[in-house]
Amino acid sequence: MGIEKHHFIPEDMRGEITLRVNRIQEIMKRSGVEALLLTGNANVFYTSGRFFRGYTYIPLSGEAIYFIMRPDIYDTSSVRSYTIRKPEQIPSVMEENAIALPATVGYEYDDLSFSEVKRLQAVFPDATAADGGAVMREARMRKTPYEIGQMEADGLHQAAVYRRIPRVFKEDMTDVEFQIEIEHILRMEGCLGRARMSGRLMEINMGSVLYGENADAPTPYEFALGGAGTDPSLPVGADGSIMHSGHTVMVDMNGAFNGYQTDMTRVWRIGDIPEKAVKAHDCSRKILRRLEEIGKPGCPVADLYNEAMRIVEEEKLERYFMGHTQRVAFIGHGVGIELNEQPPITGRSKVLLAEGMTLAIEPKFVIPGVGAVGVENTYVVTDRGLRCLTPFEEEIQEL
Amino acid sequence: MGIEKHHFIPEDMRGEITLRVNRIQEIMKRSGVEALLLTGNANVFYTSGRFFRGYTYIPLSGEAIYFIMRPDIYDTSSVRSYTIRKPEQIPSVMEENAIALPATVGYEYDDLSFSEVKRLQAVFPDATAADGGAVMREARMRKTPYEIGQMEADGLHQAAVYRRIPRVFKEDMTDVEFQIEIEHILRMEGCLGRARMSGRLMEINMGSVLYGENADAPTPYEFALGGAGTDPSLPVGADGSIMHSGHTVMVDMNGAFNGYQTDMTRVWRIGDIPEKAVKAHDCSRKILRRLEEIGKPGCPVADLYNEAMRIVEEEKLERYFMGHTQRVAFIGHGVGIELNEQPPITGRSKVLLAEGMTLAIEPKFVIPGVGAVGVENTYVVTDRGLRCLTPFEEEIQEL
Repeated sequence: MGIEKHHFIPEDMRGEITLRVNRIQEIMKRSGVEALLLTGNANVFYTSGRFFRGYTYIPLSGEAIYFIMRPDIYDTSSVRSYTIRKPEQIPSVMEENAIALPATVGYEYDDLSFSEVKRLQAVFPDATAADGGAVMREARMRKTPYEIGQMEADGLHQAAVYRRIPRVFKEDMTDVEFQIEIEHILRMEGCLGRARMSGRLMEINMGSVLYGENADAPTPYEFALGGAGTDPSLPVGADGSIMHSGHTVMVDMNGAFNGYQTDMTRVWRIGDIPEKAVKAHDCSRKILRRLEEIGKPGCPVADLYNEAMRIVEEEKLERYFMGHTQRVAFIGHGVGIELNEQPPITGRSKVLLAEGMTLAIEPKFVIPGVGAVGVENTYVVTDRGLRCLTPFEEEIQEL
Repeated sequence: MGIEKHHFIPEDMRGEITLRVNRIQEIMKRSGVEALLLTGNANVFYTSGRFFRGYTYIPLSGEAIYFIMRPDIYDTSSVRSYTIRKPEQIPSVMEENAIALPATVGYEYDDLSFSEVKRLQAVFPDATAADGGAVMREARMRKTPYEIGQMEADGLHQAAVYRRIPRVFKEDMTDVEFQIEIEHILRMEGCLGRARMSGRLMEINMGSVLYGENADAPTPYEFALGGAGTDPSLPVGADGSIMHSGHTVMVDMNGAFNGYQTDMTRVWRIGDIPEKAVKAHDCSRKILRRLEEIGKPGCPVADLYNEAMRIVEEEKLERYFMGHTQRVAFIGHGVGIELNEQPPITGRSKVLLAEGMTLAIEPKFVIPGVGAVGVENTYVVTDRGLRCLTPFEEEIQEL
């Protein structure tokens, strides 16, 4: 059938991959990790521009080495790569090719199972094992111009979908039916239908639609807000309620179109809603405007959180902020290849903002009897403050 | 807002949970694991009937103990449970409540990250750590009557969706557009939109639609067949081809409606297809009929695989079986809470079939220039052979 052989790393991606590898190596030098053996899905994608089954080996200097298990179909003439059947072959392949064995190897302690890390540690039995995950999280936290471009594209797609949301609403629809129609326009717009997330506490399908009181149902997952879901096996999001006048519906759906993603929330209302809900929504926007201004390189991430809390307290809306029955202690998070990247935006963060970091900031309120309000945008840190990657009108519109 | 307090384990589920815990404890006794500390999503669901954030502690005898972190909203009067903030509190809570500390604890080595297992091992520093994952995989392999009932319901929903598939096909549609319409009817039928899978090598959205030559594109993932996908970040499934006459389209979409799932594949054709493709499809059905007959308790799983290979060789279809450019060495797998449960159906399996095991069997062929053919059904092992849980016509129909 003649499957076409694609370059493992296409020509126009080679400079980009070199830039990323250099960035990783700078952090390795500071961290005392002499080599990284990466196989987690997000890190494989970051270091090669694709997902393949195998390993990216990053030495302290020089180019990355790819150990490819499957599929074995690429034109690899432009990269240093070897075909292997199992990771245990890596040291002998290295020796045969005069590649020095490392004294310290970093593995992805947070991304791989206990069994998988144990197996990989045995591949280099004489090396000291270290956590390489922290190096990778730090490297990926600051995006390259190419990555920011990918996320800009995500934001435009996501905004184009959100623009069509009012069109799919029908009276007496359930929140689940509403969500399904939004999923449909997302997918038709090119959404891949799956957002990468780190860890096992982020189970969700294509995002969250929170209508009315269901916004206050606590979830076991690590999302900002909850929702009961429709089944005890997946307790998050829309619960099948029919949507009635006097309530809000918050839409926080998947923006993954190209291996990256933006995270964006907007709120619509059905009929009129109480003044208190509008006030809280305006408070969310006020917070975003303030953080856009102060979010420059060097600003402590904790300041973003504390400044948000100050504004919330000024407006006496603390009891509704980031949940009501169950509240969370963050107002946003890094976003990129994974939905939950570094840094979480908390009051205890020690991270300083740096140019190119991309953050989803989501000051949200749950108003009892009404629903959730607030805006979430994805931003990139620039020397002029936060630049929005999710350009879409923020007011609460009527459905 | 008055979130209603639900029983942590509803009354009608208590006998079921006790049955499962007893089953786990029988296997623990054989394995020398004195206690299990479970927190992986599938095992938490199996041992409680819901997903919560926290831990199910299974002692060698007596009832399960639940350490609940979040959400803390349940009526727990009918279970033995304690609220904790972090796992490090578990031993002191046990001591305060006169629960003996275990000498050996099993953790989920394959389901939890290296970091998470390390943290949990330190919770019981004096206990010997063991892999508890194998115990749980064995326990979950044989389904209870309740679980089989849930999967029967999944199969009926999935069949109801597949019945409507021809209705959403339009001429000159792309395979992605076709898949999106199938996703829509799945979701409207109640599909949760997310199937649990074990491990990091099963990234997919709501399933796979494989049209024409794309069926032969190898994937890095652990699925039976591949597909190039539409983006290098998610190289699996539909690739955006316009669907033309003379080809097949294989539909293998998500059957997860209630925490369990069935796995089912059917094939449609656009116009006429070559005789060779029809012959291979008939061979798949012949294999299924034969395996339905021999798949009784006591039958080695390896016999299922070997019998399938024998029939394939008899029909001289080896080069197309389970892939063409890239082939896999299994013809099916256990299925239940997770899509990829035990046992994989391979020639090297040491597992014997037992009553109540549920298997997805998927003898598939890739015919160059035409596409994929073959049928996948989900079965339960009974003393009369395999009983089909995915009742839907198997012939290749024209779209």
